[in-house]
Amino acid sequence: MVPVKYPGVSAGSLHRLLWNQAMIAHRRYVSFTPASQLTINDLNESTLEAKYAVRGKIPIRADELRSQIESDPENHGLPYDRIISANIGNPQQLDQKPLSWYRQVLSLMQYPNLISKIDGLDSEVKDKLYPPDVVERAKKLLKSTGSVGAYSGSQGDATVRKSVAKFISERDGYPAKPEDIFLTGGASAAVLYLIQVLSAGKDTGFLIPIPQYPLYTASIALNNAVPIGYYLDEDNHWSTDPEQIRSLIKENKDKGVNPKALVVINPGNPTGAILSEEDIAAIIDIAAEHGLVLIADEVYQENVFEGKFVSMKQVYAKMLAEKPEIYKNVQLASLHSTSKGVSGECGQRGGYMELVGFSKEVRDIIFKLASINLCPVVSGQALVELMINPPKEGDASYQLYHHETSSIHHDLMKRSTLLYEAFCKMTDLKCNKPQGAMYLFPSLLFTKEKYPTLFEKADELNLTADEFYCTELLENTGICCVPGNGFGQVPGTYHLRTTFLPPGTAWIDQWAKFHDKFIAEYKQ
Amino acid sequence: MVPVKYPGVSAGSLHRLLWNQAMIAHRRYVSFTPASQLTINDLNESTLEAKYAVRGKIPIRADELRSQIESDPENHGLPYDRIISANIGNPQQLDQKPLSWYRQVLSLMQYPNLISKIDGLDSEVKDKLYPPDVVERAKKLLKSTGSVGAYSGSQGDATVRKSVAKFISERDGYPAKPEDIFLTGGASAAVLYLIQVLSAGKDTGFLIPIPQYPLYTASIALNNAVPIGYYLDEDNHWSTDPEQIRSLIKENKDKGVNPKALVVINPGNPTGAILSEEDIAAIIDIAAEHGLVLIADEVYQENVFEGKFVSMKQVYAKMLAEKPEIYKNVQLASLHSTSKGVSGECGQRGGYMELVGFSKEVRDIIFKLASINLCPVVSGQALVELMINPPKEGDASYQLYHHETSSIHHDLMKRSTLLYEAFCKMTDLKCNKPQGAMYLFPSLLFTKEKYPTLFEKADELNLTADEFYCTELLENTGICCVPGNGFGQVPGTYHLRTTFLPPGTAWIDQWAKFHDKFIAEYKQ
Repeated sequence: MVPVKYPGVSAGSLHRLLWNQAMIAHRRYVSFTPASQLTINDLNESTLEAKYAVRGKIPIRADELRSQIESDPENHGLPYDRIISANIGNPQQLDQKPLSWYRQVLSLMQYPNLISKIDGLDSEVKDKLYPPDVVERAKKLLKSTGSVGAYSGSQGDATVRKSVAKFISERDGYPAKPEDIFLTGGASAAVLYLIQVLSAGKDTGFLIPIPQYPLYTASIALNNAVPIGYYLDEDNHWSTDPEQIRSLIKENKDKGVNPKALVVINPGNPTGAILSEEDIAAIIDIAAEHGLVLIADEVYQENVFEGKFVSMKQVYAKMLAEKPEIYKNVQLASLHSTSKGVSGECGQRGGYMELVGFSKEVRDIIFKLASINLCPVVSGQALVELMINPPKEGDASYQLYHHETSSIHHDLMKRSTLLYEAFCKMTDLKCNKPQGAMYLFPSLLFTKEKYPTLFEKADELNLTADEFYCTELLENTGICCVPGNGFGQVPGTYHLRTTFLPPGTAWIDQWAKFHDKFIAEYKQ
Repeated sequence: MVPVKYPGVSAGSLHRLLWNQAMIAHRRYVSFTPASQLTINDLNESTLEAKYAVRGKIPIRADELRSQIESDPENHGLPYDRIISANIGNPQQLDQKPLSWYRQVLSLMQYPNLISKIDGLDSEVKDKLYPPDVVERAKKLLKSTGSVGAYSGSQGDATVRKSVAKFISERDGYPAKPEDIFLTGGASAAVLYLIQVLSAGKDTGFLIPIPQYPLYTASIALNNAVPIGYYLDEDNHWSTDPEQIRSLIKENKDKGVNPKALVVINPGNPTGAILSEEDIAAIIDIAAEHGLVLIADEVYQENVFEGKFVSMKQVYAKMLAEKPEIYKNVQLASLHSTSKGVSGECGQRGGYMELVGFSKEVRDIIFKLASINLCPVVSGQALVELMINPPKEGDASYQLYHHETSSIHHDLMKRSTLLYEAFCKMTDLKCNKPQGAMYLFPSLLFTKEKYPTLFEKADELNLTADEFYCTELLENTGICCVPGNGFGQVPGTYHLRTTFLPPGTAWIDQWAKFHDKFIAEYKQ
């Protein structure tokens, strides 16, 4: 088949050679009118509509200002020298140190050869580098999960899932099963899977709290479904009103929207409120009656300053045990994450969801979605295990762990109080006392009557009053927070969300000064 | 406002207390008919339709068999003692060791305190634990990216993106810009963003090679778009036929489907073939003429055994320089990953995409999608930097790095040859010589005439002939690979995809024995 005149050239290569020569000739003479570049009108409409305020316009402007400062630190022309990122709960970007326990185990998992290398050292040197329980845990995890460089099962490593089930059982006093646990890349990945699977068309509704965490409206928009906002009661510590939810369900069903799931964020983001057991029970009743999937976003369960966190799974299990015939069809997805709490390991993308009450068929579809994403990052899966299964009293690492976690907890509490107290002193700004999470969501008491020029100026700039306030705050002080309209608010009210994570009190003082000046300028 | 008879109780708490008591009373008498559990008919139809064979039916069955073995290692009743996972390119799940260079730097990034701890050690002890260039790189990365526990920018860390741009410039001889680089969680995340953004409705078409990597059909299905398969020419080393692609475009436009993008996998998955520069140029011509976004999946660019990898970006840049008026609107997304090559760090979820030729508006939408996912795992971002910027000659780590990478490369080449040679000896199985990637995709030459009972039996089990072969292979030998129908194949042909990664030759011998027996049983 190979002509003799091409000795040593295989048939395949020869074909390619000839064909390629033909192509070159062809291309020399080819002439066509080139097509134009894509515009956004060529794109998926739902991706245009999705909004994500936490990393939206104001944070993007903050990044520009940060670049301006960095590009010429001496002569940047701004009245401040740094940007205060209060727009996102990102503790380690600020000054929170990671917990030694986590990082020690993860470093050995990344470099398992180090285990045998330090084994050869004097025990004094060795213990200074790694306490013995760290080495033990790393060995154990490496044995069960294998290399952090290998894909795990798409649902996550089996050993870690067992640990998570045990953690939930002990937290709640009701059993949890490893097969119900999905390890995920932070809680965001879990939310995206759930909303995607449950969105069965333009008539699918999702009940979400208002104010909400904008991941919910963004993923609902991406899936062409309908957000149904139920208002939290600001005057009443952002509590939930079951009657309002029932009316919304009826109202939406009447107009052809089919509510499919109900989202609860507890402790609240951005509200900082904690739900009572009875509030949770009332919500479970609604889910049972209307066949709504419950999505319990409980990533701030360790961030509690006042009151007590009760998981939705616990209340659900209690009600199921009491009246199985009523609650047996309730479907609950609860989410947790390594990004918040005292861990603050946002960049490591660890998290889990527990799915209870779902049929096998439905769970299989969720599993398939997870498969398409291959697997959550394996070091993040290990981190989940370290978070829920920390050193115990008597372990070599216990004291340091205990010291570090209590001091972070104490520090977060102190920061929330400091900012809250500063807000209490500000004119025409009202704030609920924080109970948990990492945010304050104060109300800006702006009305057209009291602040006519503010509204005029905002209108001119095509901004809402809260956007205008946050923009001015950023431009004048370098403090970046997010206007309330990104989270949702009662029409005619204005809020902002800020974390209380930035260190020190200087930024709070600057904010207070800015606020006084702002009020003086715009209040009639 | 607080009645005197509840001293010490705030108005808010009191309201909650009373309301909660009311709720308890309410719940005691509440009666409703509980709604039923969700079925798959309540779910998003596109999530039901998406298929992902690489982790589909046969791999799920393999997991069951693995559990059966593990649950009773002595008495599991199977004719083998382990499952050979040849269904997925997951080198470190098998026996490939991670590169020391990567893991040493990442371990210090996980535990930065270790840097100062080892600084206090004797230099002899210290150098045994960490070569000095490892410590330097870790310090440099920690300085620029900050803690691996903090969220990075959604597009990925700026310093790493600068490194990627430099790597591409040096690889191709044409400039690349950091602002065009998006760091992603493996290449899969990039594919999912691109397909999602470009899917503008049921008339959007994506040209994909057949056979393809099933992530493409899965994500096209998830976005309700239309896959348009162009067949690679098996008889011609799986080469690409531009004329076929042009006809498909015309044919689809005529029936109202609008081709939006063209996917190229080079080196090929599952084919193992490498595209010539001229093949690539012909594809770019098509993209320029028809306004198709080019998606160049180049994750196997380091896995080349025969021939030479030329990046699509290089050919594009060359053509753009020659005839800017023709090529200025071509839009190219090229993808790379830390999961393949000699890195094999699948579980670490590192990767990047370079977007060239896109308008700012379109890029902003892709950025927004990345924002909704917050950020790719930060340790994975650091790993990208370590992959593209390894130790240089003269650096303390160079020798070990060079030794480890060459031995992995050599080993992969050897394994591919061994399996290929074994396939060449098998009856009615035909395989192209592998040029790159991690897979072989042999053809099973089964016809109803030659193998009537095989087709009868497969039909009875509601399986295709390739599914039947792979099922039998798994059940009889524990070797798990994936039938060709998961990747697409010319109707009436049957294939399977297998990695050549499993260690040793015993599994290959078992396969050969199984194959002989299978042929003997079914061939007429």
